[in-house]
Amino acid sequence: MRVAKVIGNIWATRKEQKLSSLKMLLLQPINIINGSSDGVPMVATDMIGAGVGETVIYVSGSSARSATGDRSNPVDASVIAIVDDHDLDESVI
Amino acid sequence: MRVAKVIGNIWATRKEQKLSSLKMLLLQPINIINGSSDGVPMVATDMIGAGVGETVIYVSGSSARSATGDRSNPVDASVIAIVDDHDLDESVI
Amino acid sequence: MRVAKVIGNIWATRKEQKLSSLKMLLLQPINIINGSSDGVPMVATDMIGAGVGETVIYVSGSSARSATGDRSNPVDASVIAIVDDHDLDESVI
Amino acid sequence: MRVAKVIGNIWATRKEQKLSSLKMLLLQPINIINGSSDGVPMVATDMIGAGVGETVIYVSGSSARSATGDRSNPVDASVIAIVDDHDLDESVI
Amino acid sequence: MRVAKVIGNIWATRKEQKLSSLKMLLLQPINIINGSSDGVPMVATDMIGAGVGETVIYVSGSSARSATGDRSNPVDASVIAIVDDHDLDESVI
Repeated sequence: MRVAKVIGNIWATRKEQKLSSLKMLLLQPINIINGSSDGVPMVATDMIGAGVGETVIYVSGSSARSATGDRSNPVDASVIAIVDDHDLDESVI
Repeated sequence: MRVAKVIGNIWATRKEQKLSSLKMLLLQPINIINGSSDGVPMVATDMIGAGVGETVIYVSGSSARSATGDRSNPVDASVIAIVDDHDLDESVI
Repeated sequence: MRVAKVIGNIWATRKEQKLSSLKMLLLQPINIINGSSDGVPMVATDMIGAGVGETVIYVSGSSARSATGDRSNPVDASVIAIVDDHDLDESVI
Repeated sequence: MRVAKVIGNIWATRKEQKLSSLKMLLLQPINIINGSSDGVPMVATDMIGAGVGETVIYVSGSSARSATGDRSNPVDASVIAIVDDHDLDESVI
Repeated sequence: MRVAKVIGNIWATRKEQKLSSLKMLLLQPINIINGSSDGVPMVATDMIGAGVGETVIYVSGSSARSATGDRSNPVDASVIAIVDDHDLDESVI
C-alpha cells in the first residue's frame, strides 16, 4: 500500500455503469518521511469518507476491487484507511 | 486509475481473436495538475466512446478485463470514464 | 497495453514444462510518437506469429495468461496484435 | 519479492473493516547490495512479527492477499520473511 | 518476463509457512542488449535449479504463483527458464 494526500475530486458523467455508485478522489502519492510528492496524481475510489487534505493509505491492483465490496468493479486503486499517526526510525536505514 | 488524453487510434489486422470486437485507443498519460505528459503513450480498449482530444480515466491490470465485460479478454488497460471536471487543492501538499 | 518492436529470439532448454509449447520473443518497448526505445528489452510469448522487425502490441500481467489460451501458464507478457497503422493528434497534448 | 527495512509503524482508526485484525508496518525498500534506499517508503501487512530495524522480504500484488490467509483482504503488500543472511557474487554481473 | 542474472542466495528462518519448501534466489535484472544491470536486485523462487552466474527468465505477479505449482503460495516472482542463447537484431530499433 502507498501513502497519499487527498488533493481533490474528479467528475465524469459518461462512465462505466458500475462506477455510478463509487466516489472518486484525486490522490497525490507522497513520501511519508518528509511529505514530498512522489509521482503524479492518480484516481482512487473511496469507501470510507476521506476528505481533501487528509493523509490516506490506498491499495492498488486487484485488491482495490476487493475493497469496493464487489470484485467485478473496474477499479485499480481504493482508499482503505485514513492515517492518524505514524512513527519512523530513520536510523535503521 | 490514471488520467490520460486520447491522442489517436491504432489498427491491427492480425490479432488475438478476442480483440476483434474491441476498439483500441492511443492514450497519453498526463499529470492532471498541469496537463503535462507523464511517460510514453499506451494502448487501451474503449467501451464508452471516447474520442481524440478527450481527457479520460483508465484502469490497468486485471480490472481492465472486468471493464470489457468479459474477464477472459486479453487486455490490461481500459478507458472507464470521460472526465467532465475536477477540482484540486494543491495547498494541502 | 504497450507498443514494442520485436528485436529477437531467446532460447531455453531448461524451463517450466508448461513453456514447452510457447514461443518466446525479445521485445523492445517503444514510444510510438517517435519510435525511440522506452526501457529495457523484455520477453513475451507470441501466439500470432510476429517476426523480428514488426511493431506489436503486448499485454502484461494476468491478462497475458488469458492470451495464451491456458490461464495456468506461467507467463506475464504476450504479443496480442501486429500493428498495421496508427494516427496521432499530438496537438491535443 | 523485494527486500526492505522495517522503519516504523502507521495507525489508522478509520479504515476498511477487514484491516482491523491486520498489523501495518512502514517499509523502506532497499538495494541489498549496499543497503541504500530504493524508492519511497510503503505500507505492508505483517503476519510474522517483524520489528523495526529488521531486514525483511515482502510480496506485492494479489499474492499479498494470499499471505494474509484471506484472499478477500484489501492489501497489496505483505511481509513474508525476516532475512537471516544472504550471499552475493557480484562478479557475475 | 524479464531477463536477470542469478547473483546469490538469501535465507530466512522466520517466514510464511508456505515458503518452507521453496528455494529463494537473488536476481539482478539486466538489459540483455549489453548485460548491464537494470534496477535493484530482487528475490524470486526457483523451481528449475538455477545457479549463481546463470542468465534466467523470471515471471512476475500472479503468474509467479502458477509457476510454483500452488496458486496459494505467497510469491510474486519465479524463475521459469535458464537462457541458452538469444539473437538480437538491433537494426530494427
